[in-house]
Amino acid sequence: MVTQRPRDPHRTRRRILAAALQEFSARGFAGARVDRIARRARANKRMLYHYFRDKEGLFRAILRLKLAERSVWLARGPGDPERSLPYWFERIVNDVDWVRLMQWEALEVGGGAVIGEVERRAALARSLDWVRARQAEGRLPRALDSRQLLLALASLTTFPVAFPQFTRLVTGHLPGAVAFHRKRVEFLRGFARTLAANGARRRASELHA
Amino acid sequence: MVTQRPRDPHRTRRRILAAALQEFSARGFAGARVDRIARRARANKRMLYHYFRDKEGLFRAILRLKLAERSVWLARGPGDPERSLPYWFERIVNDVDWVRLMQWEALEVGGGAVIGEVERRAALARSLDWVRARQAEGRLPRALDSRQLLLALASLTTFPVAFPQFTRLVTGHLPGAVAFHRKRVEFLRGFARTLAANGARRRASELHA
Repeated sequence: MVTQRPRDPHRTRRRILAAALQEFSARGFAGARVDRIARRARANKRMLYHYFRDKEGLFRAILRLKLAERSVWLARGPGDPERSLPYWFERIVNDVDWVRLMQWEALEVGGGAVIGEVERRAALARSLDWVRARQAEGRLPRALDSRQLLLALASLTTFPVAFPQFTRLVTGHLPGAVAFHRKRVEFLRGFARTLAANGARRRASELHA
Repeated sequence: MVTQRPRDPHRTRRRILAAALQEFSARGFAGARVDRIARRARANKRMLYHYFRDKEGLFRAILRLKLAERSVWLARGPGDPERSLPYWFERIVNDVDWVRLMQWEALEVGGGAVIGEVERRAALARSLDWVRARQAEGRLPRALDSRQLLLALASLTTFPVAFPQFTRLVTGHLPGAVAFHRKRVEFLRGFARTLAANGARRRASELHA
């Protein structure tokens, strides 16, 4: 006897979003096909359109999830760059699909308008506040431009994941490998310490001036 | 009267390579089409196959050019990170097609084997020597892993170009904009100075130990 499993709309929704992220990661936004997403999620297309309206709706829903995740990393993660750079790297290396999607976006739209401009700016404003707070504490160099510094911290944590072939050619390891992970975490800690040492030093000399 | 312009094989070859780089940048290696490249270069396909054999041959020829360029940046560019980071950034921001090609490659092959492994490893070994020489001089922190440091320098100079949408959302400027350029150069100089100050300090304390 085959019993019909009761429908769980939340689970269906989550399954569709997971399938959409996989499809976007594999083919980019432009190349993604809604019917492939529905098939992969074992959902019917009518259901998918009901929940998300269209392909852009799927992208927006994923974006909201990712921004919310990052907001938690920022609010609950360590407040010291020495620990937060490794912490962010660990999360980004386990979020390859999203990094790939951002890369597809870069190739597809270049510097042009992106989906979710407003929400993304708002999220980045919170990251910028975080950077400025660390500068005020002398844990990041105060003399450096905050926006450029935010860009630099994103580079340091994302680049090895975004260019796995380069990471492998330089270090002999893929970004997801345990051996790479160990070295990267150690490096990011030391790198942040170097930056902080200088920030603190300037601060001390200002106090004694 | 129409006079036939005499054929210049070098010029034809260069025109084909420029067209190939454009095509690869627009569609990636997998999506690029040799007939489109030939058309764009106003060359016939027989000529193209004669010079480069196939699509991979075109990629290898571009790769050789790019590695040679970078080898010159390294050998003739400034030896001080404070000046070489801005110097590299200036070159990379004017080489967007190549950055895009590397990004397509990341999306297409992930961490798998790439075309030109051997030449690329050799070029990276030279870059690594450069980093180690700067560490020995105390211009880059000696306590940090050289390979990770090379990855970091590549991140700092390439990331804003690779993710123009992110650069714009964070700073309000596209990576190629004059306003961004000015700030980025100033930032990279200050950032390298911060790293160097710490490297030198450790060195001084070692000398006095």
